[in-house]
This record gives sequence, structure tokens and C-alpha cells, in this order.
Amino acid sequence: MNPTTATVLDPLEIARQLAHQFAQTAAERDRQGGNPKAERDLIRRSGLLSLSIPTEYGGQGATWPTIFKTVQILAQADSSLAHVYAFHHLLIATVQLFAQPAQYQHWLQQTVQQQLFWGNALNPLDRRTTVTPVADSEYLFQGDKSFCSGSVDSDMLLCSGYDATGRLLIAVIPSTRSGVHFLGDWHNMGQRQTDSGTTHFEQVRVHQHELLLNPGPLSTPYASLRPLIAQLIFVHLFLGVAEGAFETAIQSVQGQKAWSKSRVEQAVDDPFIQRHCAEFYLQLESVRLLADKAVQSVQQAWRIGPELTAEQRGEVAVAIATAKIASTNTSLYITEQMFQVMGARATTAQLNLDRFWRNVRTQTLHDPVDYKYQELGEWVLTGKVPDPSFYS
Amino acid sequence: MNPTTATVLDPLEIARQLAHQFAQTAAERDRQGGNPKAERDLIRRSGLLSLSIPTEYGGQGATWPTIFKTVQILAQADSSLAHVYAFHHLLIATVQLFAQPAQYQHWLQQTVQQQLFWGNALNPLDRRTTVTPVADSEYLFQGDKSFCSGSVDSDMLLCSGYDATGRLLIAVIPSTRSGVHFLGDWHNMGQRQTDSGTTHFEQVRVHQHELLLNPGPLSTPYASLRPLIAQLIFVHLFLGVAEGAFETAIQSVQGQKAWSKSRVEQAVDDPFIQRHCAEFYLQLESVRLLADKAVQSVQQAWRIGPELTAEQRGEVAVAIATAKIASTNTSLYITEQMFQVMGARATTAQLNLDRFWRNVRTQTLHDPVDYKYQELGEWVLTGKVPDPSFYS
Amino acid sequence: MNPTTATVLDPLEIARQLAHQFAQTAAERDRQGGNPKAERDLIRRSGLLSLSIPTEYGGQGATWPTIFKTVQILAQADSSLAHVYAFHHLLIATVQLFAQPAQYQHWLQQTVQQQLFWGNALNPLDRRTTVTPVADSEYLFQGDKSFCSGSVDSDMLLCSGYDATGRLLIAVIPSTRSGVHFLGDWHNMGQRQTDSGTTHFEQVRVHQHELLLNPGPLSTPYASLRPLIAQLIFVHLFLGVAEGAFETAIQSVQGQKAWSKSRVEQAVDDPFIQRHCAEFYLQLESVRLLADKAVQSVQQAWRIGPELTAEQRGEVAVAIATAKIASTNTSLYITEQMFQVMGARATTAQLNLDRFWRNVRTQTLHDPVDYKYQELGEWVLTGKVPDPSFYS
Amino acid sequence: MNPTTATVLDPLEIARQLAHQFAQTAAERDRQGGNPKAERDLIRRSGLLSLSIPTEYGGQGATWPTIFKTVQILAQADSSLAHVYAFHHLLIATVQLFAQPAQYQHWLQQTVQQQLFWGNALNPLDRRTTVTPVADSEYLFQGDKSFCSGSVDSDMLLCSGYDATGRLLIAVIPSTRSGVHFLGDWHNMGQRQTDSGTTHFEQVRVHQHELLLNPGPLSTPYASLRPLIAQLIFVHLFLGVAEGAFETAIQSVQGQKAWSKSRVEQAVDDPFIQRHCAEFYLQLESVRLLADKAVQSVQQAWRIGPELTAEQRGEVAVAIATAKIASTNTSLYITEQMFQVMGARATTAQLNLDRFWRNVRTQTLHDPVDYKYQELGEWVLTGKVPDPSFYS
Repeated sequence: MNPTTATVLDPLEIARQLAHQFAQTAAERDRQGGNPKAERDLIRRSGLLSLSIPTEYGGQGATWPTIFKTVQILAQADSSLAHVYAFHHLLIATVQLFAQPAQYQHWLQQTVQQQLFWGNALNPLDRRTTVTPVADSEYLFQGDKSFCSGSVDSDMLLCSGYDATGRLLIAVIPSTRSGVHFLGDWHNMGQRQTDSGTTHFEQVRVHQHELLLNPGPLSTPYASLRPLIAQLIFVHLFLGVAEGAFETAIQSVQGQKAWSKSRVEQAVDDPFIQRHCAEFYLQLESVRLLADKAVQSVQQAWRIGPELTAEQRGEVAVAIATAKIASTNTSLYITEQMFQVMGARATTAQLNLDRFWRNVRTQTLHDPVDYKYQELGEWVLTGKVPDPSFYS
Repeated sequence: MNPTTATVLDPLEIARQLAHQFAQTAAERDRQGGNPKAERDLIRRSGLLSLSIPTEYGGQGATWPTIFKTVQILAQADSSLAHVYAFHHLLIATVQLFAQPAQYQHWLQQTVQQQLFWGNALNPLDRRTTVTPVADSEYLFQGDKSFCSGSVDSDMLLCSGYDATGRLLIAVIPSTRSGVHFLGDWHNMGQRQTDSGTTHFEQVRVHQHELLLNPGPLSTPYASLRPLIAQLIFVHLFLGVAEGAFETAIQSVQGQKAWSKSRVEQAVDDPFIQRHCAEFYLQLESVRLLADKAVQSVQQAWRIGPELTAEQRGEVAVAIATAKIASTNTSLYITEQMFQVMGARATTAQLNLDRFWRNVRTQTLHDPVDYKYQELGEWVLTGKVPDPSFYS
Repeated sequence: MNPTTATVLDPLEIARQLAHQFAQTAAERDRQGGNPKAERDLIRRSGLLSLSIPTEYGGQGATWPTIFKTVQILAQADSSLAHVYAFHHLLIATVQLFAQPAQYQHWLQQTVQQQLFWGNALNPLDRRTTVTPVADSEYLFQGDKSFCSGSVDSDMLLCSGYDATGRLLIAVIPSTRSGVHFLGDWHNMGQRQTDSGTTHFEQVRVHQHELLLNPGPLSTPYASLRPLIAQLIFVHLFLGVAEGAFETAIQSVQGQKAWSKSRVEQAVDDPFIQRHCAEFYLQLESVRLLADKAVQSVQQAWRIGPELTAEQRGEVAVAIATAKIASTNTSLYITEQMFQVMGARATTAQLNLDRFWRNVRTQTLHDPVDYKYQELGEWVLTGKVPDPSFYS
Repeated sequence: MNPTTATVLDPLEIARQLAHQFAQTAAERDRQGGNPKAERDLIRRSGLLSLSIPTEYGGQGATWPTIFKTVQILAQADSSLAHVYAFHHLLIATVQLFAQPAQYQHWLQQTVQQQLFWGNALNPLDRRTTVTPVADSEYLFQGDKSFCSGSVDSDMLLCSGYDATGRLLIAVIPSTRSGVHFLGDWHNMGQRQTDSGTTHFEQVRVHQHELLLNPGPLSTPYASLRPLIAQLIFVHLFLGVAEGAFETAIQSVQGQKAWSKSRVEQAVDDPFIQRHCAEFYLQLESVRLLADKAVQSVQQAWRIGPELTAEQRGEVAVAIATAKIASTNTSLYITEQMFQVMGARATTAQLNLDRFWRNVRTQTLHDPVDYKYQELGEWVLTGKVPDPSFYS
């Protein structure tokens, strides 16, 4: 597969093929953790990295429904790869939201031509990286930044730091820029191949034209779509994992004998197992529909562009918060309860089926779901939409 | 409002106006029970009884999405009236599914012209009504039939009985037919104005041309849409009640002070109340989307018509079962928990707010939700769609 | 039965006999609402009104485990009568907690001798009743007081008002005192025979020696047991109702055929019904044990007497809060879900089974369970016991 | 610590000291899996292996409440070690239930004197091990047996096989008996140091006097206490793990700042976190009380001895089933939700906090909790107690 042919294939079909490949090794790679270099290269070669890039820059110009669908498909097999893949597209969107075409067109064209994979070093909660202006429209980035998903083996890096006045500055640089060090210190109970470790900036030179200043981060309702897209990525990660767990459970039940005390012979006829599986399906269907609605609202807002009003942006936020809560609850529920229908033999380390739960248990903690409830409840009761922030 | 003008108004707007009127007296009429004659006449005069009747018979030819939406809107205010109104349309659909145009076109034309309200005396589980053939293509219906919703004050009656061979025969007759007696014995904890009591048939003469024999009840996949439409009516009753309870609760909270131990002044800012209300909204949104999907599937199947395959009918059944379970759970949840956010003063008999819960607690028992889970789980695990019956 | 013989009978057996009698008419009396004069007189004649009165005043000197058990037994049949009966004992306890023997011994002796029934007009949240000192160590009570459970047909009345400085004054007077008017305006969706309406005080004279001033309300950790006893009464009301609903449901299932789609013949063999009933039992068992533990803690604190420390009182509060939350959730759950196992015919108004839910839905709103969670969580996290108040 | 001093120390205090030691390395040993030889030797030296052995054989003659309490305490720190320790006592009980003193007294005396650790190779569902009689009252065991918890590094082994007639024969042999091979193939997602792998019997000679034949397995109600004790061990494993997770979560919250959107500064004051922690506590309290009740019922049945009736045994089974369901649900709930209050940083692999969930998720699948509900529901509805089996 190469970019030329990839662009003529259905991107969902490409995603399915990738997912199929990733599934073969997902259990083993979860055990290993670390950087999934081979799989990241498969993504590069698939052409999907240009999916969200507008056609005027040589990309495929896909809509958000298509982009999120590819994320969901990958997450069914491997939520770490789905995460870094999705964040690549989030970063592509970020430059379009925080900057102007004159600045970003070159980056996007290069991304298409060279199948560049973007990584994230933005975490605004970590204030250890400082930005100091130096001569000739240049800045020095200095310090550490944590939770840099997809940074290792990235080609382009979106990074941030705070200047002396406390202003957050965001830049795009090649990952090979001198002084950029990826510490490779990500070692977590879930999402183990997202490389979400520390980036160290040692006197890294950044040019003025690499800073995203016009309009800049979260500066307008439209620019503030960025965190909403991030939240909606999580929704599709959770949904994909839940679907992967569901499929695994259903297939397992189909081959089982019923428990000795059951009135039936086959596990598929056991009323308790039927009830569990109905509940799984019911929850998945709800999440799929809530996610679809949220994706449609993002797509509509994206089309409106810089004219997007705060109220319109707020409605998108509400739709995504709703889907976020539901997908959080459902993914935790199914990845825990899948074992209830599969039985004790599903716990062998060889299958490594606990990775489904570990992955969503980890990722659902990105920001507290309690405060998504709070935001949503406040809107229900008062009509006040959530204030834009990097978490809402 | 009269039929002429009604047909040019948006039916949803008409439904909203009716709902607004019904809401003024719903609490009081729930206390009284009995037959809501005045409100039934308002429905007659609204023109909505012809909503589902094809335009070739003078009706409005509305699609199922529109029809179900009117049911939902009425149920927000009064689920008894919504029930008998919806069952009118179910019976209009029944003759189209169980019989041929040559037989039913006259009934439908008359229904439009005279604003006839149809009532139900079908209950196939009650085998006490017998059908005996007599001379001249006539039959005698004799015996009792229970759970005859909307029978009192009806103009047309769909009724059933079993012949000596155990065959279920269904007929359409004028409610004034000699020997038809509505006992008015419906006295229940909920759905108190649905008149779902006993019909007694005392040597009631039924003509051959009044029997629905071609293709007859549940005889084909298409004919078997009838119970699915009934189930989807329940979904919209539950959803409407839940929405009515939700609106009542939200409005009440908006005027309240927070509990003395809260850190905030106003109830709308109380984190626990915010969380409850977010949960209400989240569940309602899920049910609305699941219901929409089910309605679309019914509409599609309706368009396909007699060519509908068993598998296609099965997919409709699955979509409706899913929505049925979710709407059951959500309507019980919200009508119980609404009090949690409203507080003790919401329990005064004057407000009669327990009617929301009593209505859904009653109607959700039509057939056990446990077996909707069972059907759905069996399909998830084996692909087997639910067998057509009067309950699935 | 008369007091002499009653004192030699087991009080639990007497309570069971009363409960049996009340059960015959509970459904009908719920419909009527109003004052259950005949049943209140049966309680008087049963001798149980002296159960909690110390033996030195002629009472039975029962321990709290026995007293609460009688409340629970009555609540299984009729939670309105259980409520006013329990509050009688709460008021007997109140004078012992807020006053000294020299003041209250006469009241308690009279209560035993004349089978006096005490009523409540204390509601500290309602500040409409004012207290004004007049000549000769007398005071005038003037104004309304809401939520006066057990006031109608009471013999003694515990009442409260605020003086000009905002101090809450609590007095005990005969219910026949001139100027005391029970408005009989209690009309609610549940607890319909508790007479929890308004008491109007029209220039009611109260003597200095009728005021509970030493140590006075909530003035010490020991005096602050009063609201905890009230909360624990609610626990036993909820538990009793849940047990009554459970028994009703189980007996009903025992006579039923299984649903037509079940693989079994009898409802008792239906796996879904078995699961529901197991869940009911499991929750009931938990509540029973939590309630027992809370009762033991109250009994121990009662024995310690005025030396009770704030910390010891706090531990009682925590045990009761725990039981309160659990009994709230369980009673709502079972009274709603009982219908799930009983089916549609259980909704007939004749059985009036919705009264179980209406009763607990009403009474559980006395104070928000959300803030019981809050108190408990704060204690779990910080060790801080709940501050004494009339609700904790 | 040595056996002599250990027997004069409080066994609960000894268990706490062991738990404290195990806690230091539990996270690391979970990663490693395999046999915890050093910790097993600490248990040997603690003297706790003789805790359940009657004093007439030199043991400590502890009651079941004490024995189960030590299991619970160990499980708070390390549920693998708690498991094999508890199963040691189960096996000590097994010989007393399935055999006569003349046969087992020597084993028990030796166990006390030499601090012998018993291992389990009983699994009756695995029929691969055959028993063939040979000359001189001897038998040959041949084949594999799976799920042999505590077999590696055991001193004594309870093992089973089926003879040619399909009869289950159970024997006690030294683990060093020629032909006994522990394959060390246990590699699972949870309970990773229980050594629950395969035992291979290669022509293992077993003497007649090593077979437990009088009265033999599950042959009487009293003998049938064995699986109930096993089930109650699981209850205490689940409870201990849940308590360990709870303590970990509470301590973590105590040092945290509240989320940026909270109205408060400290996480301990956050209302959502308070609510979560209250719910944890409430569930734990319920399980503790249900477990206590079940332990009391076992102790009472144990005291009754061989006279125990089927009905009495059934009541023990019901109490244990109730506690089993509750502890299953609670342990899964708390080990999943602990992260909700701790936040994203709790997911670092260094802490290895997912082991709590992995341990209970694994162990709770020993037999399906759905069928514990089924048994309990059947008893509730019909009074029929669970049939004795190796799972009930």
C-alpha cells in the first residue's frame, strides 16, 4: 500500500485493514509497552495521516465523521495506536484553528508529501517549560513537559511553554530540532504504547513563524473547538475499546458450554448471559448514537468556521460532554463485565484481556468525568454552556 | 380549531396546543379517572385523528416520525390521552396491515370525514370472547374482553374472539353495534384515563366483510409490524412522560434555595442536583436517539410494504426492543428521582406529581422488560431475530 | 387487650397483632387519608405507648432495639401509623434528653396511666410561631407550625416557637390547651395518615415549667441524640415498608404462571424473577444489619447518658447516616421493582400497591439523602463527624 | 518471630504484621508472578498455619471468626498470599470434614510441629487424573490436575482423581511423594502468586490410609460445609482487597488538590469525591456485616458437627451466598472506582494499582455470581436451600 493507492481506497477499509494487523500483536505489544515503531510506520504508509488535511494542501479533505470513524476502528483493536493516530489529526486541526493558512500550508503540504506523523507536547497544566525571547525573532524553549502522547518517533511536534508574563505560547517544530529530547519514561497501567512520557527541551530554538499566534490558542469560539475535538477523540477511543471487548466476549460465549447449574446446554442460551449481552449492546448503541450526534455537531461548527459564536460552540460542547460521560461509563462497564460472560478461563495472561479495562480506566481519567456531569447539569439547569478550557 | 384549518397547521404544533390544554387538568383528571370525554373531543376536533390516514382516503398521510412525535408531545402532558390517541393510529395501521384496501378504504374515509375515534378490544391473551358462525356470512361474538384501551367513547372498535378451532378472528365494527357493552371497570394505579376496562359482547353480530382475513393477523412479516408499532408507541409514551417529569423538575429547581448544608445559595448551583439533572438529560438524550432510530426503521419497513422479509422485520424488532428497554428504565428512573431534586414539598397531593411514576410504572408492565432483554441478548449472541408475536 | 395484660405480652408480639389488624385496612385507609382514629386507639389500648417509658415512671423500660423493632413491624403493614407511633416515642425521649426528671416525670407517669399519645409540633425550619413572655412566668405562642405529624387526636403536644431574640423554645402542653388548633390540612401523595399538617397557635398560654430548658434542645452531645433517633426512626420506616413490599411480591409470584416466553412453567422458576428476588433479599439483609448496628450504637450512647462525648455522638451519627442511605435506596428500589416480578395485574387500584412506593418516596425526602452521603464522605476522608443539627 | 512466641501473640496482630511486610513488595511481586517463597516462609514462621488446628493436636484451636479475620487482613495487602494461606486452613478443615480423627490426627500434629504448608490439587471439574488400585492397599494416581492453588512449595498435598467407576477419590500425601510434579504454569491476569497451575501425577503411589473415605467428600450435610468454607474464603479475599483499595484511595485523596473546576481547594472537600468515598464506605460496611453473619453461621454449624441437618447446612449456604454476591459486586466496584477519586496520576505502572482490580476480577470468576443470585432467588421464592456441590 502506498499513499497514491491509499487515497483511492475507502479510508474506513484502510482503517479496518490496519486494525486487523494491529490486533494480531496488540496483546503482546501491551505487555512490552514502549514505542510501536513498526505499527506507526504502517499507519504512515497507509496514507491515513493525510486524511484530515484539506485537499488544497494535497490531503484527502475527509469530514470529521470519517476521521472519527477511523479512530474508532483502530481503537477496537489497539487504543494506543488509535490515540496517537487521532492526536495527529488533532494537531493538524490545531494549526488550522490557532493559525492562518499562510503559516500552516507548508506544514500540511509536507505532511502529505512525506507522510509526517505529528506528536503532542502541549500539556498546558505542566508549567515547567519556559519560553524566552532572544535576538532575531527567535525564542528559547527550556524545561520539561509531561504527558507528550505520540512524541517518540514523531516527525513534527506541537509544543508549548510559558513566557515570563505567564502567557502560553504554542509552536510547531520538527521533532528533530536540536535540543528536543524524548525521555521515553512512559510506563503506565494502560495506553502503554502511546509514548505519553516526558519531552525535555534543552535550549531549543523556535522561530517566530513557528508560533501559533493568530488567532492563538482558545482565543475565539472557533479556536476553542480544539479541546472539544480532543474530548471527542476520547469518546471514540472509549467506544472503540468497548466494541473490541464486546466482540471478544460475544465470540467467546459462542463457543462455550453453559455453566453446570444452567437449565440449558449452550452458553448462548443462558438467560443471564443473554441479559448481560443485551445490556452491553444497549449501552453500545446509545453511545454510538450520542457520539454520532456529537460528531455531526463538530462537523457543522467546523464548516461555520471563524464566525462560530460562543453559543454555537457551547452546543457542541454539550453534545460532546454527553457522549463523553456515556462512553466513559459504558467502556468501563463492558470491559469489566465481559469477564462475567466469558468465565474464569478468560483470565489467563496469554489472552491479556484485562488490557481493554486498563486502557479505558487509564484514558477515562484524562479529566474527571464528575466535572463533565457538573458542566452538563449546570447547562441543563441554567442554560450556561461550558466555559472553554483545555478540558471543556 | 376545526378540521379544515387543522390540516393546514403543523401537526406537531397542534399536538403542542393540545398538550398545553391537557396539562391544565391532567393532575385533576388523574385523580378522577374515568373517561376524558371533553379531551377526546378536543382531539377529534384537532384533526389529528386523520394524521396517519393515507391521502388517497382523505387523510394527512403523515409519516411515522411525525405520528410518533405527536404521541410523544401529548405524553409529556398526559399519557392516558397519548395512549388512546396513539392506539387509534395503531388500529388504523392494523387494518392496513391485516386487510386489503377494498375492505378498509370506507372505514378510513369515514374516519376522516366524521373524525371517528377508534378503540381497541383485541387482547389476544383473553380467550373469553367466542366467535360462532351463523347464517348469511355472519358471526356472533359472545363474552368478555379485558384491557380494552380507548373503548369507552369510541366510534369504531377493533375486536377479537376465538372460534371453535382456536383461531383468532379480528373484526372492525361500529362501537354502537347492538350488544357491545363497555363496562367502565378500569380503575388502576396509573394510566387512569385510558378506559382500559372490559368490553362485553352479548350476541354481537359481525359480518364477514368486517373480519380482517386477508392477509390476517401476524400472517406475514409485514402484517407482523403491528405489535412492533404498538411497542414503539409505548416507547414514546415512556419518553414523553419522562420528558414531562424532567421539565417539571427542572422548573422547580430553578426557583429553589439550596439545602441548608450546601456551600451554595441556589439549588441550580448545588453539585448534587447538577449531577442528578445531568444524568436525567443524558438518559433522555439516549432514549430520544434510540427511539428516532427505531422510528426510522419502522418507516422504512412500512415503505417496503408486503415485500418485507422476516429478516428486515427482525431488524425493526431489534431496534424497537432496544429503545423499549432504554425508555422503560429511563422513565422509571426520572419519575422516581425527580423528587430527589425537588425536595419534600413536591409531595403535596395538590401537585399530584406521583402520577408520572404511576403512569409509567403501570404501562411498562404491559409485557415484561426482562424478556425484551432476553430477545435482544439472544439476537446479539446468535443473530436470531425475535419471533413475531403480539408482544414482540 | 388492656395495659395490664399488654405489659406481660411480648411487645413484638403485640406489634405483630396490631400490624395484622392494620394490614386489613391499610389500602383503603391510604385512599381516604385523614386521621386513623380507630387504629390510634388500638395502639393506645395495646399498651405500647408506655414501651419506652422507664420503669420508675411505670413504663416498660424497653431498650431501643425493642422499640425500633416494633416500629419496623408496624411499618411493614402501615407506615403512617408506624410513623406517629414512633414519633410518640421520639417525643418521650426528647423530654428525657432536653429536660430533667423533676420536670418530665409527671408527664411520663400520666402517659402510662392514661395511655396518652404524644404529637409533634416542633418543626424548627418553620419560624412562623412566635413566643412572647407575659406576666407570671407565662408565655404566649402565636402563629402556624407546619409538618406536625401525629398532632390530630394527640393527647400531649411537643411544640416550638422562636422568641424575639431568635431562640428556639420547646414546650410540652396538653393538646387540649386553649388556642391550639389542628387544621387537618395534610393531603399528600404518601404517608397519608400521619396528620402531618399545620397546627395553629392562637394566643396559647404556656407555663415556664412546660418549657424544656435544662439542658435544652441540642445543647449537649447527649441532648443531640434526638435528631439521630428521628433519623433512625426513618430507617425503620423505610425498612419496614420495603419488607412489606417484599413479602407482598414474593407471595404474589408464588401463585403465578411464568411469562409465555419463559422456558419454565411457574414464575418461581423464572431466572429473571429469581434474580430480582435475590437482589431484593440481598439489599434487605444489608439494611437490616446496618440498622441493627445503628440501633446498638444508639442504645450504647443512651446508656452512657449525659457524659456522652461529641466524638461518641459522632460515631452514632455515622452509623445512622450509613443505615439511612442504604434504607433509602433499598426501599425505593424494592417498592418500584416489586411490580417487575408481579406483572401488570398488580397495578389494579383495588390492591393499591403503589402506596408502598408513595410512602417511602415521600418520607425519604424529609432531608436530602445527597447530604447524608456528603456527611458520610466527609467523615471518611477527614474523620470529622457530622455537626449536630435537627437533620444530622 | 518463632512458633513458640507466635502462639502467645494475638493472631490478628501477627496477621497485621505479616500484611505490613507483604505490602512493601506486593506491587513488585505481582509484576513478577511466580512462587512467593520468602513470604510463604514468613507465614510458616508466624505460627499462623496452626491457627485452625484443634488444641488436642497442638494447634491454636481458633474459631472461624478469628481464622477468617486473618485471611481478610492478609488480603488487604496481598490477596495471593491470603488465598494460599486460607486454602491451607480449608484443607485442614477438609480432612476433619471428610475423615476421622484416627486418620488425620497425625497429619495435624505434624503440621503444627513442622509448620507444614498444605497445598490444593483437588479441582473436581478436571477429570484427567485417574486412580487405579494396585496390590497392597495401594493406588496409582496418573494424569494432570489444573488450578492447584498453593501447590508449589507446599509440604502436604490434598489431591483427587477419578477411579474407573467415576468415583472421586481424595487423598492427602506429602508433596515430595515420588511422581508429583508441579508444572509452574500459572500465568494469569490476577492472583498471580497463587501458583494455581497444573500438578502432574506420574504413577504416584497413594496408600489406602491416605484416602479420605469416612465419611468422604460431600457425603453428609456436615461434610458439605467444605465448599461453603471455600466460598467464604473468597468473600474475605474480596472484602480484604476492597478494603486495601479503599485505604489506598482515601490516603491518596488526603494529599490532593481539588480539580481546577471545583469550588473548593482540597480534594477531601470536593462533593463528588466525598460522595464516591461515602459510597465505598457504605458498601464495605454492608459486606463486613454480611460476612460476619455468614462467619457466625459457619461457626455455629461447625460446632454442631456431624449432627448438622441439611436444612441447617442450607441456612449457612444462604448466608454465604448473600455475602458472596455482595462482596463480589463491592470489590469490583471499589477497585474500579478508586481511580475516579485518585485521578490520572494513579495509573502509573510504578504504583501498580490495577492489581487490586485484576485480583478480584480474576478470583470472582471462580464460579459465576449469576448462579449465586439464582440459588438465592430460588430459596427466597420457594424455601429450597442450595444443593450441596463443590460450588455451593
